[in-house]
Amino acid sequence: MKTSLLAIAATAALAAPALAQTDLPADADLRSAALEWFEPIPDTPQIPAGNVLTPERVDLGAMLFFDPRMSRSGVFSCQSCHNVGLGGVDGLTTSIGHGWQQGPRNSPTMLNAIFNIAQFWDGRAPDLAAQAKGPVQAGVEMNNTPENLIGTLNSMPGYVDAFKAAFPDEDAPVSFDNFARAIEAFEATLITPDSAFDRFLKGDDAAMTDQEKRGLAAFMDTGCTACHAGRNVGGQDYYPFGVIERPGGSVLPEGDRGRFAVTQTADDEYVFRAAPLRNVALTAPYFHSGAVWDLHEAVSIMSSSQLGTELAEPQVDEIVAFLGSLTGKQPQIVHPILPVRNAETPQPQPMVQ
Amino acid sequence: MKTSLLAIAATAALAAPALAQTDLPADADLRSAALEWFEPIPDTPQIPAGNVLTPERVDLGAMLFFDPRMSRSGVFSCQSCHNVGLGGVDGLTTSIGHGWQQGPRNSPTMLNAIFNIAQFWDGRAPDLAAQAKGPVQAGVEMNNTPENLIGTLNSMPGYVDAFKAAFPDEDAPVSFDNFARAIEAFEATLITPDSAFDRFLKGDDAAMTDQEKRGLAAFMDTGCTACHAGRNVGGQDYYPFGVIERPGGSVLPEGDRGRFAVTQTADDEYVFRAAPLRNVALTAPYFHSGAVWDLHEAVSIMSSSQLGTELAEPQVDEIVAFLGSLTGKQPQIVHPILPVRNAETPQPQPMVQ
Repeated sequence: MKTSLLAIAATAALAAPALAQTDLPADADLRSAALEWFEPIPDTPQIPAGNVLTPERVDLGAMLFFDPRMSRSGVFSCQSCHNVGLGGVDGLTTSIGHGWQQGPRNSPTMLNAIFNIAQFWDGRAPDLAAQAKGPVQAGVEMNNTPENLIGTLNSMPGYVDAFKAAFPDEDAPVSFDNFARAIEAFEATLITPDSAFDRFLKGDDAAMTDQEKRGLAAFMDTGCTACHAGRNVGGQDYYPFGVIERPGGSVLPEGDRGRFAVTQTADDEYVFRAAPLRNVALTAPYFHSGAVWDLHEAVSIMSSSQLGTELAEPQVDEIVAFLGSLTGKQPQIVHPILPVRNAETPQPQPMVQ
Repeated sequence: MKTSLLAIAATAALAAPALAQTDLPADADLRSAALEWFEPIPDTPQIPAGNVLTPERVDLGAMLFFDPRMSRSGVFSCQSCHNVGLGGVDGLTTSIGHGWQQGPRNSPTMLNAIFNIAQFWDGRAPDLAAQAKGPVQAGVEMNNTPENLIGTLNSMPGYVDAFKAAFPDEDAPVSFDNFARAIEAFEATLITPDSAFDRFLKGDDAAMTDQEKRGLAAFMDTGCTACHAGRNVGGQDYYPFGVIERPGGSVLPEGDRGRFAVTQTADDEYVFRAAPLRNVALTAPYFHSGAVWDLHEAVSIMSSSQLGTELAEPQVDEIVAFLGSLTGKQPQIVHPILPVRNAETPQPQPMVQ
């Protein structure tokens, strides 16, 4: 992390002074500069390593994603906290789970998550399949066990057949690993191409407004790109929150030391995966704490804590406008019809802790 | 209710003795008898009284139906307890609501609910619009207020525009009444035509198996049709639970006196709207108490409590097979993309009681 820290500090030191308004660069220059940092969301899904995107596997993943019977209570599905209609989040400070427990961190979006370096705010899951095994077992989330989950799936012929079709060459297709791989396959299809920003990157000068273009220029000039770059405008690496000035405990709670819990390395205290900013206008509240509801305020906090700069209000507005240009085409998902339970299916246990 | 009681008793007294297997009638005779009691689910929605099914209104209704921000907590939507992927129910004994409170009754399906005489187990709402105003305000369910709801809707231009489009001739389109009317419009489209039973009723002899046909004959012969008739095979009138023999308190809890709470009439003690049986194979657990998970057991309980008959096992199996033929084509709903919240939008309050 030390290299990254130095890089951030250097970028911040070189940042342009806070002007009232950012100069509007020529479109070709702006695009050329932006393509040094970013790339568009592709129009077709990226196939996850070790997985395939057959219709059978993606459809099974959708069923599992939307099925509340994957939780011990029968109340929560993946969709509960990663709502396809709400930019992939639940819109809560931190998620509510089994027994009305409140989780420790804000729910991140699964839209475009395939493009992140790793999953969760601290990157503790290397891929979407590993991620999918987490919440289903977490006591404060879905509170299930792999055994009860597999028992539930095996009880329903509709699921057994769907697993056979999704994993046709396997002797024991209904497994916790394949549960996770099917969800990964579905989630890999949840990408949001064709944002105004993407269309601009691809050559359409008129796709972004002047204010959005000023915001893109400011985003690069002030050093935001030191942490938020790549296809997801973030999500590509880990950085400390509070490089220059640590924000207050409501925004950065002391008890959550971020990636330190994963690596047990002192340098990783309060280090998080840079938030991917695709569709960020849809995903309030912000930060791992979910403490900030207004994107304008979130940008201001970032500028002081990460860049050591007090951006002028017009420049914050520009950056917020640029962030709005990152909203892509949202996925149109037909709600799956789920397999029918029967007498063998384990009953929901909402009142069991 | 006394007329109905006498009618039920008379039907039960005339019921055929419990044979090991029901005689298989000729198809034409069976169809002719069935058409005295039932009619098919239509292929196109019925327009609710005082409402219209414009695409704009139905689409708005779908947004409201799927939006968890209609609840105080931000956790529950209509869809939480009336899941379009689960036959229109939540699959819980009784639903879990705000603060993990457990509701008093099993969640009934909204599929084909437009064809019921009234809504809720006790018929306390005359139509789907009146019904839609209930759970959103119920303390144990969505725990919201009309004021907070309207404030939420008015804060989001996406909703304001959608209400204007759905109610184009109104000066103040964003209202609690119109919230309910839009949901009613959407729910009116949630019908499940084309079940095997419907295809048989319409003349397709091969649509039902012999066992299903025997079950249909038994359903009529033993007197089930005294309460479960009409388009929804139930849901068309009110009847006492335990006409002949009151089932135990786990199935019929003493504290829930049913329609008595609506009419305050002694005759309505333990009277409920006959459960509509369309898609009943998808909607376990059963009864207003949600105490019975197995449809076979539910049929047995009904035969002893309502008909005073102990049906032979093969005949119960036949009736269960017939009930399976009531599963229609499930609605294919594209999950709506919901309007974006902003700084004016009231924040979710999961921890406020």
